[in-house]
Amino acid sequence: MGMQEIASETARLLARMRAARPLVQNITNFVSMDIAANVLLAAGAAPAMVHAPEESPEFVRRAAALVINTGTLSQPWADSMEVATTAARVHGTPWVLDPVGAGGTQFRDHVIQKLLRHRPAIIRGNASEIMAVANACGLSKTDEPKARPRGVDSAHATSEAELPARRLARHSFCVVAATGAIDLVTDGERLVRLANGSPLMERVTALGCGLTSLIGAFAGLGEDPFIATVAAIGVYGVAGDMAAETASGPGSFRTAFIDALDRIDEGEILARLKTV
Amino acid sequence: MGMQEIASETARLLARMRAARPLVQNITNFVSMDIAANVLLAAGAAPAMVHAPEESPEFVRRAAALVINTGTLSQPWADSMEVATTAARVHGTPWVLDPVGAGGTQFRDHVIQKLLRHRPAIIRGNASEIMAVANACGLSKTDEPKARPRGVDSAHATSEAELPARRLARHSFCVVAATGAIDLVTDGERLVRLANGSPLMERVTALGCGLTSLIGAFAGLGEDPFIATVAAIGVYGVAGDMAAETASGPGSFRTAFIDALDRIDEGEILARLKTV
Amino acid sequence: MGMQEIASETARLLARMRAARPLVQNITNFVSMDIAANVLLAAGAAPAMVHAPEESPEFVRRAAALVINTGTLSQPWADSMEVATTAARVHGTPWVLDPVGAGGTQFRDHVIQKLLRHRPAIIRGNASEIMAVANACGLSKTDEPKARPRGVDSAHATSEAELPARRLARHSFCVVAATGAIDLVTDGERLVRLANGSPLMERVTALGCGLTSLIGAFAGLGEDPFIATVAAIGVYGVAGDMAAETASGPGSFRTAFIDALDRIDEGEILARLKTV
Repeated sequence: MGMQEIASETARLLARMRAARPLVQNITNFVSMDIAANVLLAAGAAPAMVHAPEESPEFVRRAAALVINTGTLSQPWADSMEVATTAARVHGTPWVLDPVGAGGTQFRDHVIQKLLRHRPAIIRGNASEIMAVANACGLSKTDEPKARPRGVDSAHATSEAELPARRLARHSFCVVAATGAIDLVTDGERLVRLANGSPLMERVTALGCGLTSLIGAFAGLGEDPFIATVAAIGVYGVAGDMAAETASGPGSFRTAFIDALDRIDEGEILARLKTV
Repeated sequence: MGMQEIASETARLLARMRAARPLVQNITNFVSMDIAANVLLAAGAAPAMVHAPEESPEFVRRAAALVINTGTLSQPWADSMEVATTAARVHGTPWVLDPVGAGGTQFRDHVIQKLLRHRPAIIRGNASEIMAVANACGLSKTDEPKARPRGVDSAHATSEAELPARRLARHSFCVVAATGAIDLVTDGERLVRLANGSPLMERVTALGCGLTSLIGAFAGLGEDPFIATVAAIGVYGVAGDMAAETASGPGSFRTAFIDALDRIDEGEILARLKTV
Repeated sequence: MGMQEIASETARLLARMRAARPLVQNITNFVSMDIAANVLLAAGAAPAMVHAPEESPEFVRRAAALVINTGTLSQPWADSMEVATTAARVHGTPWVLDPVGAGGTQFRDHVIQKLLRHRPAIIRGNASEIMAVANACGLSKTDEPKARPRGVDSAHATSEAELPARRLARHSFCVVAATGAIDLVTDGERLVRLANGSPLMERVTALGCGLTSLIGAFAGLGEDPFIATVAAIGVYGVAGDMAAETASGPGSFRTAFIDALDRIDEGEILARLKTV
């Protein structure tokens, strides 16, 4: 896909998403609860944070998409994720996995591997996380570097994650996105690299988690999940560019970014979206 | 009550609340933790988020009011709510219920029905939630539409909730508020409609939850809970009007709104408060 | 230490911290999750919120420091804290205790006393909390007033906490900081009083929790924990002064404060840091 086509598809899907106002159920970490909900509201979707196994299956059925995020993980939350993703598979609700901290501990890798069996439509992480998931799936060559994230930050550029991302996409029959300075999206065959956004985005906590929730909103439209992922990342990056123009630090960036997600339109997308 | 009288009562209670700085204990959802505490602090109250059954009863005794919010519900949190509301009834601490997501799942409705037995002083929700609670209490006529909220948003205008709100107030011997574009407060007999606030308030997550916490602060003054509820909603709406004048989106609105809750005074209330 | 020396040590440690980007693991309360992570990111550290007993020990080993905060406490979280602080002691990872709500309930005091056995390097609280911890350790004279915090706010000035803080530091072989209008740091022998910051800092929820997390970042550098604590508090207070210059309320203060933590440099510290 050319840059022009990607930009116009992004604008088209944003308009569709705002018209549909998809209900996105999130089982996400405690740090991201506020910002993920605000990202969805500002962009035009309807967030719901629902995790109890007692009600989650009933809710998944009505949701347009489900987002699972493994930050601040614990066994009870892993159990909730298991229940919700099982329901998503049964009801055909597309779900998106954000494997926060993959490769960081054995517990986290174990939970993530179990979740993969319920077939996410999309996996989004930073480069280290994507490499760690691919590695845990046995997809790394022995001479390749193992990802070992430092805390929840990436220790790798997304260029290093291209091969693992492709392999993971093919292995799990899903779309894989590794985001960073350059954002990478692949379904194993197609591959797009987007180049919008600001370095301040890594200085605000849980903005990556917010992006995964927004991908959920686009995935809830029922179109090609590859295009949906590219469009959500495109919107997020362009909003980042817009916010960076007025921000004077990570605090004011956060505020400006939420405003930008509300303000972004076709004109901004066509003028600013960049692929490389 | 006339508009004038409501405005002057609102100003009087705000001044009393700031002087008393009531300690408000909240058992609230993960999304609202930050914003609810900041709303209370900005307006002049003292928030405390305390939920453990091991300490909650001891804490309820000293709190001026207790706020229970059913967002991000789970069985352990439902148990905490049961313990805290039991203690509130025993110690005579007024408590406020925010039935987030009522009507959304059987689990949530079941928990809410159990909580109602401990006699909240006030129930505040959006129109769909109030209609759903009334319905679950068996208060709907069979030919009336059943509320079926979409996620945690309202699918109804508050005008549709007038009759259910009145019935619920009489049935549960409490004040019921349904908030939205027009805010409705009733104790079964009296009914007030307030018309302040900005459409941006629904674009910032958990602002409704923050309002319920503020109602707790006003309820903690020990005056008529109907007036306390009207006053808290009046303050919130006027602060919303003030914030909307400078905001350029949901991000900057949130910031301006917290500033407005700190800045609002008698003059702003008398000049801006509107009833319909 | 003279004011000049404290200022230059503060500037030196801030530069070292930014270069090292220490990984700080936090087991903190739900209210502070967002702001504590953003404080660490803005100042230049790498936050991670990891609490599950299944993975926490593995994580503690790699972290530069561990921060334990007893807000929104529950038994499962107390168990997590027990596991993590045990691991910290075993691996020699320095850890910082924020005894939120100490003195408020028996449950909380009991958990805090248990945690103290794992030897925190630093304890930071408001005056009431520090007095309550000292009291629970049996360090108060019978004729001294007992701290009885009102909710999670301090009912005392830090000047009242000087003697309890000194005793607690000697008793627990650690650094103790009581923060408020004047901030106090002592290791039982040395004692420094810092006088920066804004009254707006008590009007934003969990800013004290954020400070404890920042102390963790400085403690992770492996230098004298007394100097590390003084430096972190110095940076925080000066950033508060900077933010207060543009803020028009607690909402805009929060935004400006995060920006200031990103912008603060040696020049600002040397020009503004004040001791008394």
